[in-house]
Amino acid sequence: MTTQPNNLDQWFHHYADRASGLAASEVRALFAVASRPEVVSLAGGMPYVSALPQDLITESIDRVMRDRGPAALQYGSGQGLPALREQILEVMALEGIRASVDDVVVTTGSQHALELVTKLFINPEDVVIAEGPSYVTAMVVFKSFQAEITHVEMDDFGLVPDSLRAHIASVRTAGKTIKFLYTVPTFSNPAGVTLSWQRRLEVLEICRENGILVLEDNPYGLLYFDGPPPHAMRSVEEDGVIYLGTFSKTLAPGFRVGWVLAPHAIREKLILANEAAILSPSSFTQSIISEYMSVADWKGQIDTFRGVYRERRDAMLDALDDYLPDLQWTVPNGGFYIWVTLPDNLDSKSMLPRAVKELVAYTPGTAFFADGNGRNNMRLSFCYPTPDFIREGIRRLSTVINGEIELLNTFSQTAPLTIAPPAPSMINPPANLS
Amino acid sequence: MTTQPNNLDQWFHHYADRASGLAASEVRALFAVASRPEVVSLAGGMPYVSALPQDLITESIDRVMRDRGPAALQYGSGQGLPALREQILEVMALEGIRASVDDVVVTTGSQHALELVTKLFINPEDVVIAEGPSYVTAMVVFKSFQAEITHVEMDDFGLVPDSLRAHIASVRTAGKTIKFLYTVPTFSNPAGVTLSWQRRLEVLEICRENGILVLEDNPYGLLYFDGPPPHAMRSVEEDGVIYLGTFSKTLAPGFRVGWVLAPHAIREKLILANEAAILSPSSFTQSIISEYMSVADWKGQIDTFRGVYRERRDAMLDALDDYLPDLQWTVPNGGFYIWVTLPDNLDSKSMLPRAVKELVAYTPGTAFFADGNGRNNMRLSFCYPTPDFIREGIRRLSTVINGEIELLNTFSQTAPLTIAPPAPSMINPPANLS
Repeated sequence: MTTQPNNLDQWFHHYADRASGLAASEVRALFAVASRPEVVSLAGGMPYVSALPQDLITESIDRVMRDRGPAALQYGSGQGLPALREQILEVMALEGIRASVDDVVVTTGSQHALELVTKLFINPEDVVIAEGPSYVTAMVVFKSFQAEITHVEMDDFGLVPDSLRAHIASVRTAGKTIKFLYTVPTFSNPAGVTLSWQRRLEVLEICRENGILVLEDNPYGLLYFDGPPPHAMRSVEEDGVIYLGTFSKTLAPGFRVGWVLAPHAIREKLILANEAAILSPSSFTQSIISEYMSVADWKGQIDTFRGVYRERRDAMLDALDDYLPDLQWTVPNGGFYIWVTLPDNLDSKSMLPRAVKELVAYTPGTAFFADGNGRNNMRLSFCYPTPDFIREGIRRLSTVINGEIELLNTFSQTAPLTIAPPAPSMINPPANLS
Repeated sequence: MTTQPNNLDQWFHHYADRASGLAASEVRALFAVASRPEVVSLAGGMPYVSALPQDLITESIDRVMRDRGPAALQYGSGQGLPALREQILEVMALEGIRASVDDVVVTTGSQHALELVTKLFINPEDVVIAEGPSYVTAMVVFKSFQAEITHVEMDDFGLVPDSLRAHIASVRTAGKTIKFLYTVPTFSNPAGVTLSWQRRLEVLEICRENGILVLEDNPYGLLYFDGPPPHAMRSVEEDGVIYLGTFSKTLAPGFRVGWVLAPHAIREKLILANEAAILSPSSFTQSIISEYMSVADWKGQIDTFRGVYRERRDAMLDALDDYLPDLQWTVPNGGFYIWVTLPDNLDSKSMLPRAVKELVAYTPGTAFFADGNGRNNMRLSFCYPTPDFIREGIRRLSTVINGEIELLNTFSQTAPLTIAPPAPSMINPPANLS
C-alpha cells in the first residue's frame, strides 16, 4: 500500500475507477489562447449579458439586502426558495409545461442537475442514449460516472425515431441496460436543429414502450427567432420525463441557478442528492432572481435577447453565404449555435491551431461525439460577438478553410478535392449511424 | 424491461446502486416542525449572519455591478476567480498554511469540495476513516458513493492516534482499501474538541507511513474564543493533505463559496470534476466576496464573530451547569457545538419529539455515527440563538431530560438510574471503540 514518493502523482493509484473518465479536453489549452481579445471566438457558449438591464439588477439586489438580507445570506432549503420555484412554473408555462411547485428542485445551474441525475441513475457500463452530436459537458458528466454513450442519428428535424428504435434494440441485444435518453430537443447544442412536434410524440412513445426515461435539457427554448418552437416534451408526458431548465441563458450564468422538474419519487431523491452535494443552492442568488422577476419585465427582456441573437444568427448566415458558400450548415430558429460540415478530407481539430493563428476560434466537431465522429464538423457560436465581429470571424475562417483545401489539393493533384453541393440546412450524419 | 405503471415509483429499478445510500434523515420531518419560531433550536449550524456589516456588503455588491457587472454575471473559470484565490491564501495564512494560488480550487461551499473529493477517490466498499462522532453530511456524501465508514475514538484532545493505528491494521487485515482519513481537527463538528499539536504531528506521521491521504475539513478554525488553536495540519504536510475551507462560517453561507487546497495532481482532477458538476463556481458571489475582502476589515469582522459566539458558548455552559449539572459535556474553545452525554439508559432520538413539544430542539447523537452509536449523546449548537434563548432552551431541555429520567426510574424501581459523576470536558467514547 505504500506509494512511491517520486512519482509525479503519488496518489495516482488511489483514484476511483470513475476518475479515469475525467480527462482534460484536447483543445482546452488552445481555448486559453483563444480567449485573448484579438481573437474572434466563435467557440464559447457565453450569453451576451451586456444586454441585461444592469441598473434593475442592482436595484433588485439592494432591495433583497434591505428587506431580507439575513435570509439571503443564510443557508436555505435543499429544494430551493419556494417563491422562486413558483416563478419557475411561470417560465415553464411558456413552453406548455404544467407542474406542481413541489416537483421543482433548484440546482447550481442546470449543469448540476445533469450531475445529480447521472449520479442517481448511472451504474458503471449503463448506457445513455444521446443525439449525435450532443452537448459536450453532458457527455463529460455521463463518462465521469462510467456510462457508455451511444449516439442516435439526427437530421434537420432532430433525432431520428427509427435510429432510436434501432439503437435500443442493438443495445439490448448486447445485454446492456439503457438508463435514459438525453436530448436537447429545441435549438440543440451543437446542431442548432429542433425536434419536430410529431417526432416529440413518437420519441416519447418509443421511450414509454421501452421503459426508458427521457432527460429533456432545454436551456434555449425561449430564445427563438422566427416563431416559437414546439412545446416541451415534458408538456405531454409527466411520468417519464426529467426536465432541465436554467436562468443562465435568459438571465445570467454568473448566478448559477437552474432547475430540474422530475416525477415525484425521483424529485425526492434529487433533493437528497442536492443536499449531499452542496447543502442548499445559494439563497443569495435565488433571492436576487426572484426579486428581479417580481419587478422587471422579464418576458420583455427575453424578447430583447431574441432580437440580439436573431441579428447575430443572421450575420453569421450571411457571412457563411458570402465567404464559405460551398460548405454545409444548419439554419437554427433559436439558440446559440450553427453546425458546419466541412469537406470530407478536412479535420477541424487539426485545423484549429491555424485558425487561432488567424485570430478566429471555433469548437471542433469531435468534441460533441463520444465515438470519434465529427472530424469534419465544427460548431460556430453566434451568441457572444457582435455582428461585425461575427462577419470578420467568418472571413478569417474562410481563409483558413480555403488554405486547407488548397493544401490538400496540392498533395492530391490527380484527384482534386470535391465539395458536396450545398445543402445549407442538412446535418451530415456520421457514416456509422445512417 | 417494462415497468409497472401503478408502482409508487415506476423508476424504482432504474436507480444506480449508490442511490440506496441517499436516505432521508429520520429526524428530518421533525426538524421541519422545529423551525417554527416558538421553538428554541439548538439543532442547526446556522451562523449568526445578522452580525455582519450589511451596508458594507451592499456597497461591495454595488461596486461589483458598477465596475465589472458583465464579468460577474458571466460564466467564469472552473478553478475560480484568481483575485479571490489570492485572498484565500491570506485567510489560510492565518492558520499557518503557505500554498500556491494555483493549488486552490473554489467550490460551491466546502460541502461541494467534499463531494468532488469523494467522487474522485471512492470506489464502492472503499473505506473512509472518520472520527466518532463525525460531521453528518460528510458521511452522507461518503455513503452516497458507497464508501464504508469506520470511526476512530476521540477524547478531549481529538482523535486518538492509537485508535487510528488499530483501525488501519484491522481494516487492512480485512483486505479492504483505505482511501482517506476524514477529520475536522479544530473545534470539531459535533464534538467541539480540538486535536492537539502533538497529535496532529503523530496522525500525519501515521498517515504518511501508511500511504493514507488526510482530508482536513476546517470550517471553524478562525472562530476561537480563548486563544488560537494549533495550526492546520496542512501547515506541516503538503503532499498528503487535502484541505477544505469556507466563507460560510466567517462570512455568509448564502454565497455558497468554499475552497479546496490539494496537492498539484489532485487539484488538476478536482478542477475537471468541478467543471463537470457545475461548469464554474458563481462569478457573482465570488466577485462580491473578493470586493468585500478588499474594502472591509474582514479580520476585525471575524473577531466580532468570535465575541458573539464566545458569549453564546458561555451562556450555554452556564445554563448546563445550572440546569443539568449531572450530565457530561465538552467545553469547546471555538466553533459552534457542544457534545452532551446523557445517562446510559436515555435515548436522545426517541426523546426528541418530547423536546420539540417542549419547544426546544437538538440533534440526536446517532446522526454523527455511521454505526448506530451515539444513542445517549446529543449535539447542542450555540451559534444561532441569542444568550437568553440559549438559557431558556437549556431550561426546557432540562425538564425533558429530568422527566425522562423520572420515567425510567419509575419503571425500574428496584435499581434507580444512576448518573456518572460529572466530568464536563470528557467525550464519552462509544463502548466498541475504547
